Amino acid sequence: MKKIAIGIDIGGTNTVIGAVDQEGNVMVNRTIDTPKHGDFDKYMADLSSEIKELINSLKLMNEETEILGIGLGAPNGNYYNGTIEYAPNLSFKGVVHLVDGLKKHFPDSYAIALTNDANAAAIGEMVYGGAKEMKNFVMYTLGTGVGSGIIVNGDLVYGHDGFAGECGHTTLIPGGRVCGCGSLGHLEAYCSAPGMKRTAFELIAQYNAEDSLLADKSYKELTSKMIYEAAEKGDKIALEVFQKTGDYLGQGLADTVHHLAPEAIFLFGGPTAAGDYIFKPTYESMNRHLLPIFKDKIKILPSKLKLGDAAIVGASALVWKELEK
Amino acid sequence: MKKIAIGIDIGGTNTVIGAVDQEGNVMVNRTIDTPKHGDFDKYMADLSSEIKELINSLKLMNEETEILGIGLGAPNGNYYNGTIEYAPNLSFKGVVHLVDGLKKHFPDSYAIALTNDANAAAIGEMVYGGAKEMKNFVMYTLGTGVGSGIIVNGDLVYGHDGFAGECGHTTLIPGGRVCGCGSLGHLEAYCSAPGMKRTAFELIAQYNAEDSLLADKSYKELTSKMIYEAAEKGDKIALEVFQKTGDYLGQGLADTVHHLAPEAIFLFGGPTAAGDYIFKPTYESMNRHLLPIFKDKIKILPSKLKLGDAAIVGASALVWKELEK
Repeated sequence: MKKIAIGIDIGGTNTVIGAVDQEGNVMVNRTIDTPKHGDFDKYMADLSSEIKELINSLKLMNEETEILGIGLGAPNGNYYNGTIEYAPNLSFKGVVHLVDGLKKHFPDSYAIALTNDANAAAIGEMVYGGAKEMKNFVMYTLGTGVGSGIIVNGDLVYGHDGFAGECGHTTLIPGGRVCGCGSLGHLEAYCSAPGMKRTAFELIAQYNAEDSLLADKSYKELTSKMIYEAAEKGDKIALEVFQKTGDYLGQGLADTVHHLAPEAIFLFGGPTAAGDYIFKPTYESMNRHLLPIFKDKIKILPSKLKLGDAAIVGASALVWKELEK
Repeated sequence: MKKIAIGIDIGGTNTVIGAVDQEGNVMVNRTIDTPKHGDFDKYMADLSSEIKELINSLKLMNEETEILGIGLGAPNGNYYNGTIEYAPNLSFKGVVHLVDGLKKHFPDSYAIALTNDANAAAIGEMVYGGAKEMKNFVMYTLGTGVGSGIIVNGDLVYGHDGFAGECGHTTLIPGGRVCGCGSLGHLEAYCSAPGMKRTAFELIAQYNAEDSLLADKSYKELTSKMIYEAAEKGDKIALEVFQKTGDYLGQGLADTVHHLAPEAIFLFGGPTAAGDYIFKPTYESMNRHLLPIFKDKIKILPSKLKLGDAAIVGASALVWKELEK
C-alpha cells in the first residue's frame, strides 16, 4: 500500500489538487478555477467532486494506494479555525469555513488541515525538502508578495490566533515604499518580485540610465526574470538591483535571526532562480546586521521544493504533520 | 513541606541569590560580588558556599522546606550548554561552564538550569506573573539595554543555538544610531533607558530648548527617571521623548507581532514606571504598523514581576519549568 496525501493549493485564479507520496512526488493532479462567484457552498461541492475524481484516477493506476488526508494552502488560511479569513484576492466574503466545508463531503475519512501557502511551504521543506534534519528554521517565499513560515522545535509557529509568520510585513525602511497592505516601508515592498521592479525603476531614474538593457521596458512589461537576464549580460542597473535587494533582504533576515536564532533560512520563489546574484548580497547584508554571537553561523539556503508543484506539495505535507500528533 | 526554587541573578557587579516559593515570593536572599578576578573555579566555590548558607538560613526559619533546584540568569547565558559565552561585562574569558561548575558542588541533588536574564523574566511572567494563562507571548525588558524572551506554545524559544530572543538588536532605523553592539540603528539604541536620554539630547538640540527642565542636566547626569519627572511637570521635550520612544518601540513590537502573532507583549523595566506616557504611544505606533488581521488584537501589558527582585524570581522560575519536563 502506497501512502498518499492530497495537497490543495487555493490561489486567486486556480485551485490545484494533487496526490503526493511520502517522498513528495506528485503522482497526479487536476486544476479547477477558483470561483469568482463567491458561492462558497458550491465551491465546496465542486472541489469535493474533483478530489473524488482524483482519488478514482489514482485507483486506475497500477499501485494500490491509501489516502491519509487532505492538506490545504490558501491566502489568509487559519490553521486553528480551518478558515480563510478576509482574503483580498478571493471572492468569498469575510470568514469561510474551509475545513468544516470539506468535512461535510468527507465525513469521517481523512485528516483535513489548512494553513497559508508560506506556512505550507515551510512544512513541505521539513517533510520532503532540505530541512528534514532541522528543528529550527524559517522559510521566506519571494513572489508577488513575501510570505514566511517559522519552525521552532520541529513545529510550525501559528501564534495565538493562527496568523504568525507574516515577516513580509516587518518594517525595513520607516516611511518608505507603500506596501500592498497600505503600510509604509515593509520588506515585501522591497524584496518581492514587484519590489525588485520598483528598485529597478528607482535606479534607472537615479542614474538617468538610458543605456541600461532595462530602459526600453515599461513598468507593466518589466519582470524580475528580465532583470536576471540583464544581470547575466552585465547590465549595471540589473546588477545593482540584485545588490540592493540583497541589502534589504539581509536586513530583514537579520531581524528574524535576532528573534528566533534559526539554524537556516530557506528562500523560495522566482527571484531565487538568480542564484548568487541574490544569495550572496543577502548573506553579506544579513551578517553585517547580526550580533557577534550569530555572525557566520546562520545558513541561507535555496528551497529544495520544485517551483512548479511546491504549493500542492507543501499543502500535502500538512497531512503527515497532522498524523504525527 | 514548602517547595522552594533557588534563583540566582549574575550581573556585572553583584550576584544575587534568593529562595523563592511557588507563588514567586522571595523568602530570603543574599548578595555577593560578581568577581573581577576572572577565576571561574573560585567563583563557583564561593557561589556554592553562599547557596549552602542560604539553604541553612532557610532551615532556621519556621517552615519546613524542600529545595527543588537552582535557576540562573546571566548575560549571554546559554540554556542548551549551561554556559556563559563571551559576556562583555563579566571578567570570565570566553565560554565558562556554569551549570557543570555548580553540579560539581551539588552532585546529585537539584535540577540546575541557566538562561539569559530576559528569557528568565519571560518564564517568570509565565510561572508567577501576568502570563499564567498565556501560551504565546513576548517579554521585552527595557533597561541599560533591551532584552527579550519569546514564549511559543508555553515554551521558551531558545532557537538552534540557545540564543534566540535578541529583539533589542533588530534594525529600526537603517544607518541610525550606533548601538552598544557596534551595529547601526538597532532598537536598543532608541528604546533602552540610555536610548531615551539620546532622544532627549537630540530633541533639546533640535529645538534649541534652553527652557526645558532637562536643559540644565549634563549627558552623564540625565536619567530616564528625570525625563519622567519632567514629563509629569508638562515639559514639552520630556513629553516628546516619550512620544518618540513609543513610536520607535511600537515599530519594533509590530515586527515581533508579524513574526510570532503573540497574545500579548509584556514590558518590564525602569522606563515602564512612566505608565501611559510610554504605553500609550507604543500601542498606537504598534497598531499603525500592523496588518489589518492583527490591528487592535495584541495587548501591551506591564510586567507583574516586581522590579527589585524580578531577576532572581525569573531565574527561579526556570526550575519549575525544568521539573515539568
